[in-house]
Amino acid sequence: MLFNHIAIVGLGLIGGSLAQVVRKKKLAKRVTAFGRNPERLQKAQQLGLVDGYQVGFASGFKEVDLVVIATPVGSIVELTRAIAPHLKPGTIITDVGSVKAAIVAALESQLPRDINFIGGHPIAGTENSGFEASFAELFENRICVLTPTVSSDRNALEQIRGLWTAAGSSVVSMDVDTHDKIFAAISHLPHMVAFSLVNAVVDMKDYAQNTLQYSAGGFRDFTRIAASDPIMWRDIALLNRDNLLATLDYFSRAIEELKDAISARDGKKMEALFQRSRDARRKI
Amino acid sequence: MLFNHIAIVGLGLIGGSLAQVVRKKKLAKRVTAFGRNPERLQKAQQLGLVDGYQVGFASGFKEVDLVVIATPVGSIVELTRAIAPHLKPGTIITDVGSVKAAIVAALESQLPRDINFIGGHPIAGTENSGFEASFAELFENRICVLTPTVSSDRNALEQIRGLWTAAGSSVVSMDVDTHDKIFAAISHLPHMVAFSLVNAVVDMKDYAQNTLQYSAGGFRDFTRIAASDPIMWRDIALLNRDNLLATLDYFSRAIEELKDAISARDGKKMEALFQRSRDARRKI
Repeated sequence: MLFNHIAIVGLGLIGGSLAQVVRKKKLAKRVTAFGRNPERLQKAQQLGLVDGYQVGFASGFKEVDLVVIATPVGSIVELTRAIAPHLKPGTIITDVGSVKAAIVAALESQLPRDINFIGGHPIAGTENSGFEASFAELFENRICVLTPTVSSDRNALEQIRGLWTAAGSSVVSMDVDTHDKIFAAISHLPHMVAFSLVNAVVDMKDYAQNTLQYSAGGFRDFTRIAASDPIMWRDIALLNRDNLLATLDYFSRAIEELKDAISARDGKKMEALFQRSRDARRKI
Repeated sequence: MLFNHIAIVGLGLIGGSLAQVVRKKKLAKRVTAFGRNPERLQKAQQLGLVDGYQVGFASGFKEVDLVVIATPVGSIVELTRAIAPHLKPGTIITDVGSVKAAIVAALESQLPRDINFIGGHPIAGTENSGFEASFAELFENRICVLTPTVSSDRNALEQIRGLWTAAGSSVVSMDVDTHDKIFAAISHLPHMVAFSLVNAVVDMKDYAQNTLQYSAGGFRDFTRIAASDPIMWRDIALLNRDNLLATLDYFSRAIEELKDAISARDGKKMEALFQRSRDARRKI
Protein backbone atom coordinates (compact mmCIF):
# COMPACT_ATOMS: atom_id res chain seq x y z
CA MET A 1 0.00 0.00 0.00
CA LEU A 2 1.44 3.30 -1.13
CA PHE A 3 -1.44 5.30 0.34
CA ASN A 4 -4.17 4.85 2.86
CA HIS A 5 -7.01 6.80 1.30
CA ILE A 6 -6.89 8.54 -2.08
CA ALA A 7 -9.35 11.27 -3.06
CA ILE A 8 -9.83 11.63 -6.80
CA VAL A 9 -11.41 14.96 -7.68
CA GLY A 10 -13.02 14.84 -11.10
CA LEU A 11 -13.86 11.39 -12.39
CA GLY A 12 -13.21 11.46 -16.13
CA LEU A 13 -11.03 9.22 -18.26
CA ILE A 14 -7.86 9.97 -16.26
CA GLY A 15 -9.46 9.98 -12.79
CA GLY A 16 -11.52 6.87 -13.50
CA SER A 17 -8.56 4.97 -14.92
CA LEU A 18 -6.37 5.96 -11.98
CA ALA A 19 -9.04 4.73 -9.57
CA GLN A 20 -9.12 1.39 -11.36
CA VAL A 21 -5.37 0.83 -11.41
CA VAL A 22 -5.16 1.81 -7.72
CA ARG A 23 -7.70 -0.88 -6.87
CA LYS A 24 -6.30 -3.48 -9.26
CA LYS A 25 -2.76 -3.12 -7.94
CA LYS A 26 -3.82 -2.44 -4.35
CA LEU A 27 -2.03 0.91 -4.18
CA ALA A 28 -4.41 2.29 -1.54
CA LYS A 29 -6.91 0.94 0.98
CA ARG A 30 -9.65 3.21 -0.22
CA VAL A 31 -10.50 5.48 -3.17
CA THR A 32 -13.18 8.16 -2.89
CA ALA A 33 -14.37 10.20 -5.85
CA PHE A 34 -15.28 13.86 -5.36
CA GLY A 35 -17.36 15.80 -7.83
CA ARG A 36 -20.34 18.04 -8.43
CA ASN A 37 -22.76 15.70 -10.21
CA PRO A 38 -24.34 13.14 -7.81
CA GLU A 39 -25.76 10.93 -10.57
CA ARG A 40 -22.42 10.64 -12.35
CA LEU A 41 -20.61 9.80 -9.12
CA GLN A 42 -23.23 7.24 -8.14
CA LYS A 43 -22.97 5.60 -11.53
CA ALA A 44 -19.18 5.41 -11.18
CA GLN A 45 -19.55 3.71 -7.81
CA GLN A 46 -22.12 1.28 -9.20
CA LEU A 47 -19.66 0.41 -11.97
CA GLY A 48 -17.13 -0.41 -9.26
CA LEU A 49 -14.65 2.30 -10.16
CA VAL A 50 -14.42 3.74 -6.63
CA ASP A 51 -15.19 2.68 -3.06
CA GLY A 52 -17.29 5.72 -2.34
CA TYR A 53 -18.11 9.21 -3.48
CA GLN A 54 -18.81 12.60 -2.06
CA VAL A 55 -20.64 15.53 -3.64
CA GLY A 56 -18.93 18.90 -3.22
CA PHE A 57 -15.53 19.83 -1.86
CA ALA A 58 -16.23 21.18 1.65
CA SER A 59 -15.82 17.98 3.64
CA GLY A 60 -14.78 14.34 3.50
CA PHE A 61 -11.07 15.04 3.08
CA LYS A 62 -9.97 14.61 6.69
CA GLU A 63 -9.05 10.92 6.35
CA VAL A 64 -7.34 11.37 3.00
CA ASP A 65 -3.54 11.26 2.56
CA LEU A 66 -3.47 11.94 -1.21
CA VAL A 67 -5.68 14.19 -3.35
CA VAL A 68 -5.46 13.84 -7.13
CA ILE A 69 -7.04 16.76 -8.97
CA ALA A 70 -8.16 15.24 -12.26
CA THR A 71 -10.41 18.04 -13.51
CA PRO A 72 -9.96 20.12 -16.69
CA VAL A 73 -6.94 22.47 -16.51
CA GLY A 74 -9.07 25.59 -16.24
CA SER A 75 -10.49 24.57 -12.86
CA ILE A 76 -7.44 23.04 -11.15
CA VAL A 77 -6.21 26.12 -9.26
CA GLU A 78 -9.62 27.21 -8.04
CA LEU A 79 -10.64 23.71 -6.91
CA THR A 80 -7.36 22.99 -5.18
CA ARG A 81 -7.63 26.27 -3.24
CA ALA A 82 -11.18 25.37 -2.18
CA ILE A 83 -10.15 21.91 -1.00
CA ALA A 84 -6.92 22.82 0.82
CA PRO A 85 -8.50 24.17 4.06
CA HIS A 86 -10.24 20.82 4.61
CA LEU A 87 -7.06 18.71 4.49
CA LYS A 88 -5.04 17.43 7.42
CA PRO A 89 -1.41 18.62 7.62
CA GLY A 90 1.02 16.59 5.50
CA THR A 91 -1.56 15.66 2.87
CA ILE A 92 -0.13 15.42 -0.65
CA ILE A 93 -1.92 17.01 -3.61
CA THR A 94 -1.09 16.35 -7.23
CA ASP A 95 -2.80 17.20 -10.50
CA VAL A 96 -2.93 15.82 -14.05
CA GLY A 97 -3.08 19.12 -15.97
CA SER A 98 -1.41 19.43 -19.37
CA VAL A 99 -0.13 22.94 -18.55
CA LYS A 100 2.16 23.30 -15.55
CA ALA A 101 3.87 26.69 -15.00
CA ALA A 102 0.71 28.73 -14.35
CA ILE A 103 -0.85 26.04 -12.14
CA VAL A 104 2.26 25.28 -10.09
CA ALA A 105 3.09 28.96 -9.54
CA ALA A 106 -0.44 29.78 -8.41
CA LEU A 107 -0.68 26.84 -6.03
CA GLU A 108 2.80 27.14 -4.51
CA SER A 109 2.05 30.72 -3.51
CA GLN A 110 -1.46 30.05 -2.26
CA LEU A 111 -1.55 26.65 -0.54
CA PRO A 112 -0.93 26.26 3.22
CA ARG A 113 2.72 25.37 3.93
CA ASP A 114 1.82 22.00 5.51
CA ILE A 115 0.17 20.78 2.29
CA ASN A 116 2.55 19.21 -0.24
CA PHE A 117 1.72 19.95 -3.86
CA ILE A 118 3.47 18.12 -6.73
CA GLY A 119 2.55 19.05 -10.31
CA GLY A 120 1.95 16.10 -12.63
CA HIS A 121 0.99 15.33 -16.22
CA PRO A 122 0.35 11.73 -17.26
CA ILE A 123 0.70 11.60 -21.07
CA ALA A 124 -2.24 9.35 -21.64
CA GLY A 125 -5.55 9.64 -23.35
CA THR A 126 -7.72 8.03 -25.93
CA GLU A 127 -10.17 9.42 -28.43
CA ASN A 128 -12.89 8.89 -25.84
CA SER A 129 -13.38 10.80 -22.61
CA GLY A 130 -15.41 10.37 -19.45
CA PHE A 131 -15.18 7.63 -16.84
CA GLU A 132 -17.22 5.32 -19.08
CA ALA A 133 -14.09 5.07 -21.27
CA SER A 134 -11.69 4.54 -18.36
CA PHE A 135 -9.61 1.39 -17.86
CA ALA A 136 -6.86 0.30 -15.48
CA GLU A 137 -4.25 -0.10 -18.23
CA LEU A 138 -4.48 3.48 -19.57
CA PHE A 139 -1.12 4.49 -18.10
CA GLU A 140 0.88 1.40 -19.06
CA ASN A 141 3.98 2.12 -21.15
CA ARG A 142 3.21 5.84 -21.12
CA ILE A 143 5.29 8.74 -19.84
CA CYS A 144 4.20 10.68 -16.77
CA VAL A 145 5.89 14.06 -16.31
CA LEU A 146 6.30 15.46 -12.79
CA THR A 147 7.33 19.08 -12.29
CA PRO A 148 8.77 19.51 -8.79
CA THR A 149 10.21 22.89 -7.78
CA VAL A 150 12.87 23.88 -5.24
CA SER A 151 10.18 24.10 -2.60
CA SER A 152 8.67 20.66 -3.30
CA ASP A 153 8.74 18.11 -0.48
CA ARG A 154 11.14 15.30 -1.51
CA ASN A 155 9.15 12.59 0.23
CA ALA A 156 5.91 13.72 -1.44
CA LEU A 157 7.67 13.69 -4.81
CA GLU A 158 8.85 10.11 -4.26
CA GLN A 159 5.36 9.01 -3.29
CA ILE A 160 3.83 10.50 -6.45
CA ARG A 161 6.61 8.98 -8.51
CA GLY A 162 5.78 5.63 -6.91
CA LEU A 163 2.09 6.01 -7.75
CA TRP A 164 2.63 6.57 -11.49
CA THR A 165 5.39 3.98 -11.69
CA ALA A 166 3.04 1.44 -10.13
CA ALA A 167 0.38 2.46 -12.66
CA GLY A 168 2.79 1.39 -15.41
CA SER A 169 4.25 4.72 -16.55
CA SER A 170 7.84 5.90 -16.96
CA VAL A 171 8.17 8.93 -14.70
CA VAL A 172 10.23 11.88 -15.96
CA SER A 173 10.91 15.00 -13.88
CA MET A 174 11.44 18.39 -15.49
CA ASP A 175 10.95 22.02 -14.60
CA VAL A 176 7.62 23.64 -15.39
CA ASP A 177 8.99 25.85 -18.18
CA THR A 178 10.61 22.95 -20.02
CA HIS A 179 7.37 21.00 -19.71
CA ASP A 180 5.25 23.83 -21.06
CA LYS A 181 7.56 24.47 -24.02
CA ILE A 182 7.74 20.80 -25.01
CA PHE A 183 3.98 20.31 -24.83
CA ALA A 184 3.28 23.61 -26.59
CA ALA A 185 5.33 22.23 -29.49
CA ILE A 186 4.20 18.62 -29.51
CA SER A 187 0.59 18.82 -28.39
CA HIS A 188 -0.87 22.32 -28.11
CA LEU A 189 0.44 23.62 -31.46
CA PRO A 190 -0.80 20.55 -33.43
CA HIS A 191 -4.26 21.05 -31.94
CA MET A 192 -4.31 24.74 -32.92
CA VAL A 193 -3.19 23.79 -36.44
CA ALA A 194 -5.87 21.11 -36.76
CA PHE A 195 -8.63 23.45 -35.54
CA SER A 196 -7.44 26.12 -38.00
CA LEU A 197 -7.19 23.71 -40.92
CA VAL A 198 -10.79 22.58 -40.51
CA ASN A 199 -11.94 26.18 -40.10
CA ALA A 200 -10.04 27.20 -43.25
CA VAL A 201 -11.74 24.46 -45.27
CA VAL A 202 -15.12 25.61 -43.91
CA ASP A 203 -14.20 29.17 -44.94
CA MET A 204 -13.57 27.90 -48.49
CA LYS A 205 -17.20 26.95 -49.07
CA ASP A 206 -17.52 29.45 -51.93
CA TYR A 207 -14.10 28.59 -53.32
CA ALA A 208 -14.51 24.82 -53.45
CA GLN A 209 -18.03 23.56 -52.85
CA ASN A 210 -19.03 20.32 -51.10
CA THR A 211 -15.40 19.74 -50.32
CA LEU A 212 -15.88 17.72 -47.17
CA GLN A 213 -17.76 14.91 -48.91
CA TYR A 214 -14.58 14.00 -50.81
CA SER A 215 -12.36 14.00 -47.74
CA ALA A 216 -10.12 11.00 -48.08
CA GLY A 217 -8.27 9.16 -45.34
CA GLY A 218 -5.54 11.77 -44.98
CA PHE A 219 -7.76 14.70 -44.07
CA ARG A 220 -9.94 12.62 -41.77
CA ASP A 221 -6.98 11.32 -39.73
CA PHE A 222 -5.37 14.71 -39.73
CA THR A 223 -8.39 16.49 -38.34
CA ARG A 224 -9.48 13.86 -35.82
CA ILE A 225 -8.08 16.07 -33.06
CA ALA A 226 -10.01 19.05 -34.46
CA ALA A 227 -13.09 17.55 -32.75
CA SER A 228 -11.47 17.89 -29.30
CA ASP A 229 -13.24 19.66 -26.44
CA PRO A 230 -13.38 23.44 -27.10
CA ILE A 231 -13.49 24.43 -23.41
CA MET A 232 -10.48 22.31 -22.54
CA TRP A 233 -8.46 23.77 -25.40
CA ARG A 234 -9.55 27.32 -24.63
CA ASP A 235 -8.19 26.85 -21.12
CA ILE A 236 -4.93 25.29 -22.30
CA ALA A 237 -4.44 28.16 -24.77
CA LEU A 238 -5.12 30.72 -22.02
CA LEU A 239 -2.77 29.04 -19.53
CA ASN A 240 0.09 28.29 -21.95
CA ARG A 241 -0.41 31.48 -23.99
CA ASP A 242 3.17 32.68 -24.36
CA ASN A 243 4.64 29.32 -25.38
CA LEU A 244 1.77 28.70 -27.76
CA LEU A 245 2.27 32.08 -29.44
CA ALA A 246 6.00 31.37 -29.75
CA THR A 247 5.43 27.97 -31.37
CA LEU A 248 2.76 29.43 -33.66
CA ASP A 249 5.40 31.91 -34.85
CA TYR A 250 7.76 29.06 -35.73
CA PHE A 251 4.90 27.37 -37.56
CA SER A 252 3.89 30.51 -39.48
CA ARG A 253 7.49 30.94 -40.62
CA ALA A 254 7.56 27.34 -41.89
CA ILE A 255 4.31 27.91 -43.78
CA GLU A 256 5.59 31.17 -45.28
CA GLU A 257 8.83 29.49 -46.40
CA LEU A 258 6.85 26.79 -48.20
CA LYS A 259 4.42 29.34 -49.68
CA ASP A 260 7.36 31.31 -51.08
CA ALA A 261 8.81 28.16 -52.66
CA ILE A 262 5.46 27.23 -54.24
CA SER A 263 4.90 30.80 -55.41
CA ALA A 264 8.38 30.88 -57.03
CA ARG A 265 7.84 27.40 -58.56
CA ASP A 266 11.04 26.41 -56.74
CA GLY A 267 10.85 22.62 -57.01
CA LYS A 268 14.27 22.07 -55.48
CA LYS A 269 13.38 24.04 -52.37
CA MET A 270 10.02 22.27 -51.99
CA GLU A 271 11.65 18.87 -52.33
CA ALA A 272 14.21 19.82 -49.66
CA LEU A 273 11.47 21.01 -47.27
CA PHE A 274 9.39 17.85 -47.75
CA GLN A 275 12.44 15.61 -47.43
CA ARG A 276 13.42 17.34 -44.18
CA SER A 277 9.96 16.72 -42.76
CA ARG A 278 10.00 13.10 -43.91
CA ASP A 279 13.40 12.48 -42.29
CA ALA A 280 12.29 14.03 -38.98
CA ARG A 281 8.99 12.18 -38.96
CA ARG A 282 10.69 8.86 -39.57
CA LYS A 283 12.95 9.38 -36.56
CA ILE A 284 9.98 9.58 -34.19
CA MET B 1 -15.01 -8.17 -70.97
CA LEU B 2 -14.84 -4.39 -71.03
CA PHE B 3 -11.50 -4.35 -72.84
CA ASN B 4 -9.37 -6.67 -74.91
CA HIS B 5 -5.87 -5.71 -73.79
CA ILE B 6 -5.03 -3.14 -71.13
CA ALA B 7 -1.59 -1.54 -70.85
CA ILE B 8 -0.75 -0.31 -67.36
CA VAL B 9 2.13 2.14 -67.42
CA GLY B 10 3.77 2.39 -63.99
CA LEU B 11 3.16 -0.52 -61.70
CA GLY B 12 2.85 0.93 -58.21
CA LEU B 13 0.06 0.59 -55.67
CA ILE B 14 -2.62 1.96 -58.03
CA GLY B 15 -1.38 0.24 -61.19
CA GLY B 16 -0.80 -3.07 -59.43
CA SER B 17 -4.19 -3.00 -57.73
CA LEU B 18 -5.95 -2.11 -60.98
CA ALA B 19 -4.20 -5.04 -62.72
CA GLN B 20 -5.44 -7.37 -60.00
CA VAL B 21 -9.06 -6.26 -60.04
CA VAL B 22 -9.09 -6.44 -63.86
CA ARG B 23 -7.98 -10.09 -63.71
CA LYS B 24 -10.17 -10.99 -60.74
CA LYS B 25 -13.32 -9.57 -62.35
CA LYS B 26 -12.31 -10.53 -65.89
CA LEU B 27 -12.53 -6.96 -67.18
CA ALA B 28 -9.96 -7.60 -69.95
CA LYS B 29 -8.42 -10.57 -71.72
CA ARG B 30 -4.90 -9.43 -71.08
CA VAL B 31 -2.99 -6.95 -68.91
CA THR B 32 0.55 -5.87 -69.80
CA ALA B 33 2.68 -3.73 -67.52
CA PHE B 34 5.01 -1.13 -69.03
CA GLY B 35 7.88 0.42 -67.11
CA ARG B 36 11.57 1.24 -66.99
CA ASN B 37 12.89 -1.25 -64.43
CA PRO B 38 13.07 -4.84 -65.83
CA GLU B 39 13.60 -6.48 -62.41
CA ARG B 40 10.58 -4.78 -60.88
CA LEU B 41 8.38 -5.72 -63.82
CA GLN B 42 9.59 -9.30 -63.79
CA LYS B 43 8.88 -9.58 -60.08
CA ALA B 44 5.36 -8.24 -60.63
CA GLN B 45 4.75 -10.85 -63.29
CA GLN B 46 6.13 -13.61 -61.05
CA LEU B 47 3.73 -12.47 -58.33
CA GLY B 48 0.92 -12.93 -60.84
CA LEU B 49 -0.11 -9.27 -60.98
CA VAL B 50 0.05 -9.04 -64.78
CA ASP B 51 0.06 -11.35 -67.79
CA GLY B 52 3.21 -9.87 -69.26
CA TYR B 53 5.49 -6.88 -69.19
CA GLN B 54 7.47 -4.71 -71.53
CA VAL B 55 10.45 -2.48 -70.76
CA GLY B 56 10.32 1.00 -72.29
CA PHE B 57 7.54 2.82 -74.11
CA ALA B 58 8.53 2.61 -77.79
CA SER B 59 6.68 -0.56 -78.78
CA GLY B 60 4.21 -3.18 -77.63
CA PHE B 61 1.15 -0.90 -77.68
CA LYS B 62 -0.26 -1.92 -81.08
CA GLU B 63 -2.63 -4.58 -79.69
CA VAL B 64 -3.75 -2.46 -76.77
CA ASP B 65 -7.20 -0.82 -76.59
CA LEU B 66 -6.75 0.95 -73.23
CA VAL B 67 -3.66 2.58 -71.73
CA VAL B 68 -3.77 3.52 -68.04
CA ILE B 69 -0.98 5.92 -67.06
CA ALA B 70 -0.38 5.14 -63.39
CA THR B 71 2.92 6.96 -62.88
CA PRO B 72 3.60 9.90 -60.52
CA VAL B 73 1.84 13.12 -61.61
CA GLY B 74 5.09 14.80 -62.66
CA SER B 75 5.71 12.31 -65.48
CA ILE B 76 2.19 11.77 -66.85
CA VAL B 77 2.25 14.35 -69.66
CA GLU B 78 5.72 13.47 -70.92
CA LEU B 79 5.08 9.71 -70.87
CA THR B 80 1.69 9.96 -72.54
CA ARG B 81 3.19 12.04 -75.34
CA ALA B 82 5.95 9.46 -75.81
CA ILE B 83 3.48 6.58 -75.94
CA ALA B 84 0.83 8.16 -78.20
CA PRO B 85 2.62 7.67 -81.57
CA HIS B 86 2.73 3.90 -80.92
CA LEU B 87 -1.02 3.47 -80.43
CA LYS B 88 -3.59 2.37 -82.96
CA PRO B 89 -6.40 4.85 -83.79
CA GLY B 90 -9.28 4.77 -81.31
CA THR B 91 -7.17 3.69 -78.35
CA ILE B 92 -8.34 5.15 -75.04
CA ILE B 93 -5.84 6.66 -72.59
CA THR B 94 -6.65 7.54 -69.01
CA ASP B 95 -4.50 8.53 -66.03
CA VAL B 96 -4.76 8.39 -62.24
CA GLY B 97 -3.07 11.71 -61.38
CA SER B 98 -4.25 13.72 -58.38
CA VAL B 99 -3.97 17.02 -60.30
CA LYS B 100 -6.09 17.38 -63.42
CA ALA B 101 -6.24 20.84 -65.09
CA ALA B 102 -2.56 21.03 -66.09
CA ILE B 103 -2.43 17.42 -67.28
CA VAL B 104 -5.71 17.46 -69.21
CA ALA B 105 -4.94 20.79 -70.90
CA ALA B 106 -1.47 19.66 -71.99
CA LEU B 107 -2.67 16.32 -73.34
CA GLU B 108 -5.78 17.59 -75.13
CA SER B 109 -3.66 20.04 -77.11
CA GLN B 110 -0.84 17.59 -77.83
CA LEU B 111 -2.33 14.12 -78.43
CA PRO B 112 -3.33 12.92 -81.94
CA ARG B 113 -7.05 13.48 -82.61
CA ASP B 114 -7.75 9.75 -83.02
CA ILE B 115 -6.55 8.97 -79.48
CA ASN B 116 -9.19 9.40 -76.76
CA PHE B 117 -7.89 10.78 -73.49
CA ILE B 118 -10.07 10.83 -70.33
CA GLY B 119 -8.59 12.31 -67.15
CA GLY B 120 -9.13 10.23 -64.01
CA HIS B 121 -8.35 10.28 -60.30
CA PRO B 122 -9.23 7.24 -58.18
CA ILE B 123 -9.36 8.44 -54.56
CA ALA B 124 -7.60 5.44 -53.13
CA GLY B 125 -4.38 4.80 -51.36
CA THR B 126 -2.92 3.30 -48.25
CA GLU B 127 0.07 4.21 -46.12
CA ASN B 128 2.12 1.82 -48.24
CA SER B 129 3.14 2.28 -51.84
CA GLY B 130 4.59 0.08 -54.57
CA PHE B 131 3.05 -2.95 -56.23
CA GLU B 132 4.07 -5.11 -53.25
CA ALA B 133 1.27 -3.32 -51.32
CA SER B 134 -1.31 -3.65 -54.10
CA PHE B 135 -4.56 -5.62 -53.77
CA ALA B 136 -7.66 -6.11 -55.91
CA GLU B 137 -10.01 -4.52 -53.36
CA LEU B 138 -8.19 -1.15 -53.15
CA PHE B 139 -10.90 0.68 -55.10
CA GLU B 140 -13.94 -0.83 -53.41
CA ASN B 141 -16.31 1.72 -51.87
CA ARG B 142 -14.05 4.57 -52.93
CA ILE B 143 -14.78 7.53 -55.18
CA CYS B 144 -13.18 7.81 -58.60
CA VAL B 145 -13.31 11.28 -60.18
CA LEU B 146 -13.32 11.58 -63.97
CA THR B 147 -12.76 14.96 -65.62
CA PRO B 148 -14.11 14.87 -69.17
CA THR B 149 -14.06 18.07 -71.25
CA VAL B 150 -16.23 19.27 -74.16
CA SER B 151 -13.84 17.51 -76.54
CA SER B 152 -13.90 14.16 -74.73
CA ASP B 153 -15.24 11.15 -76.64
CA ARG B 154 -18.53 10.07 -74.99
CA ASN B 155 -17.97 6.39 -75.71
CA ALA B 156 -14.46 6.49 -74.21
CA LEU B 157 -15.85 8.23 -71.13
CA GLU B 158 -18.46 5.50 -70.65
CA GLN B 159 -15.83 2.79 -70.99
CA ILE B 160 -13.61 4.38 -68.35
CA ARG B 161 -16.63 4.87 -66.11
CA GLY B 162 -17.39 1.19 -66.58
CA LEU B 163 -13.84 0.20 -65.63
CA TRP B 164 -13.85 2.05 -62.28
CA THR B 165 -17.42 1.07 -61.51
CA ALA B 166 -16.48 -2.57 -62.05
CA ALA B 167 -13.48 -2.06 -59.77
CA GLY B 168 -15.94 -1.13 -57.00
CA SER B 169 -15.77 2.69 -57.03
CA SER B 170 -18.48 5.33 -57.26
CA VAL B 171 -17.63 7.36 -60.33
CA VAL B 172 -18.17 11.13 -60.18
CA SER B 173 -17.61 13.46 -63.14
CA MET B 174 -16.57 17.06 -62.66
CA ASP B 175 -14.65 19.69 -64.58
CA VAL B 176 -10.90 19.91 -64.06
CA ASP B 177 -11.01 23.22 -62.18
CA THR B 178 -13.59 21.99 -59.68
CA HIS B 179 -11.50 18.86 -59.14
CA ASP B 180 -8.29 20.79 -58.56
CA LYS B 181 -9.91 23.22 -56.11
CA ILE B 182 -11.55 20.46 -54.07
CA PHE B 183 -8.37 18.40 -53.82
CA ALA B 184 -6.23 21.45 -53.10
CA ALA B 185 -8.46 22.01 -50.05
CA ILE B 186 -8.97 18.44 -48.88
CA SER B 187 -5.70 16.77 -49.75
CA HIS B 188 -2.92 19.05 -50.98
CA LEU B 189 -3.32 21.74 -48.26
CA PRO B 190 -3.37 19.20 -45.39
CA HIS B 191 -0.13 17.71 -46.71
CA MET B 192 1.54 21.14 -46.88
CA VAL B 193 0.37 21.85 -43.33
CA ALA B 194 1.68 18.53 -42.03
CA PHE B 195 5.08 19.00 -43.70
CA SER B 196 5.30 22.53 -42.25
CA LEU B 197 4.26 21.46 -38.76
CA VAL B 198 7.01 18.86 -38.56
CA ASN B 199 9.54 21.32 -39.96
CA ALA B 200 8.47 23.94 -37.42
CA VAL B 201 8.99 21.51 -34.54
CA VAL B 202 12.43 20.63 -35.95
CA ASP B 203 13.19 24.37 -36.12
CA MET B 204 12.31 24.65 -32.41
CA LYS B 205 15.23 22.48 -31.32
CA ASP B 206 16.79 25.34 -29.35
CA TYR B 207 13.43 26.46 -28.00
CA ALA B 208 12.22 23.10 -26.71
CA GLN B 209 14.82 20.35 -26.68
CA ASN B 210 14.26 16.64 -27.32
CA THR B 211 10.67 17.45 -28.12
CA LEU B 212 10.02 14.56 -30.47
CA GLN B 213 10.65 11.89 -27.83
CA TYR B 214 7.53 13.03 -25.97
CA SER B 215 5.31 13.04 -29.02
CA ALA B 216 2.04 11.53 -27.95
CA GLY B 217 -0.61 9.89 -30.10
CA GLY B 218 -2.00 13.16 -31.43
CA PHE B 219 1.18 14.45 -33.01
CA ARG B 220 2.11 11.06 -34.41
CA ASP B 221 -1.26 10.58 -36.17
CA PHE B 222 -1.29 14.16 -37.28
CA THR B 223 2.08 13.98 -38.96
CA ARG B 224 1.78 10.52 -40.50
CA ILE B 225 1.28 12.16 -43.88
CA ALA B 226 4.40 14.31 -43.31
CA ALA B 227 6.42 11.23 -44.28
CA SER B 228 4.86 11.16 -47.77
CA ASP B 229 7.02 11.06 -50.89
CA PRO B 230 8.78 14.44 -51.40
CA ILE B 231 9.06 14.11 -55.20
CA MET B 232 5.38 13.32 -55.60
CA TRP B 233 4.35 16.28 -53.46
CA ARG B 234 6.80 18.63 -55.17
CA ASP B 235 5.14 17.74 -58.48
CA ILE B 236 1.61 18.13 -57.10
CA ALA B 237 2.54 21.55 -55.67
CA LEU B 238 4.05 22.62 -59.00
CA LEU B 239 1.04 21.41 -61.03
CA ASN B 240 -1.68 22.71 -58.71
CA ARG B 241 0.25 25.83 -57.67
CA ASP B 242 -2.46 28.49 -57.94
CA ASN B 243 -5.13 26.54 -56.06
CA LEU B 244 -2.64 25.53 -53.42
CA LEU B 245 -1.55 29.14 -52.87
CA ALA B 246 -5.19 30.20 -52.61
CA THR B 247 -6.01 27.53 -50.01
CA LEU B 248 -2.83 28.35 -48.10
CA ASP B 249 -4.08 31.95 -47.88
CA TYR B 250 -7.36 30.76 -46.35
CA PHE B 251 -5.36 28.67 -43.89
CA SER B 252 -2.98 31.52 -42.96
CA ARG B 253 -5.98 33.74 -42.25
CA ALA B 254 -7.48 31.07 -39.96
CA ILE B 255 -4.16 30.76 -38.11
CA GLU B 256 -3.85 34.55 -37.75
CA GLU B 257 -7.41 34.81 -36.41
CA LEU B 258 -6.63 32.22 -33.75
CA LYS B 259 -3.27 33.82 -32.94
CA ASP B 260 -4.98 37.16 -32.42
CA ALA B 261 -7.51 35.57 -30.06
CA ILE B 262 -4.78 33.84 -28.04
CA SER B 263 -2.68 37.00 -27.97
CA ALA B 264 -5.68 39.02 -26.71
CA ARG B 265 -6.55 36.29 -24.16
CA ASP B 266 -10.00 36.25 -25.81
CA GLY B 267 -11.39 33.01 -24.39
CA LYS B 268 -14.83 33.52 -25.92
CA LYS B 269 -13.41 33.89 -29.40
CA MET B 270 -11.15 30.84 -28.98
CA GLU B 271 -14.03 28.73 -27.77
CA ALA B 272 -16.13 29.81 -30.77
CA LEU B 273 -13.31 28.95 -33.21
CA PHE B 274 -12.73 25.53 -31.65
CA GLN B 275 -16.46 24.81 -31.50
CA ARG B 276 -16.82 25.71 -35.17
CA SER B 277 -14.07 23.28 -36.09
CA ARG B 278 -15.57 20.56 -33.91
CA ASP B 279 -19.00 20.98 -35.51
CA ALA B 280 -17.56 20.83 -39.04
CA ARG B 281 -15.35 17.85 -38.28
CA ARG B 282 -18.25 15.93 -36.82
CA LYS B 283 -20.28 16.40 -39.99
CA ILE B 284 -17.68 14.60 -42.10
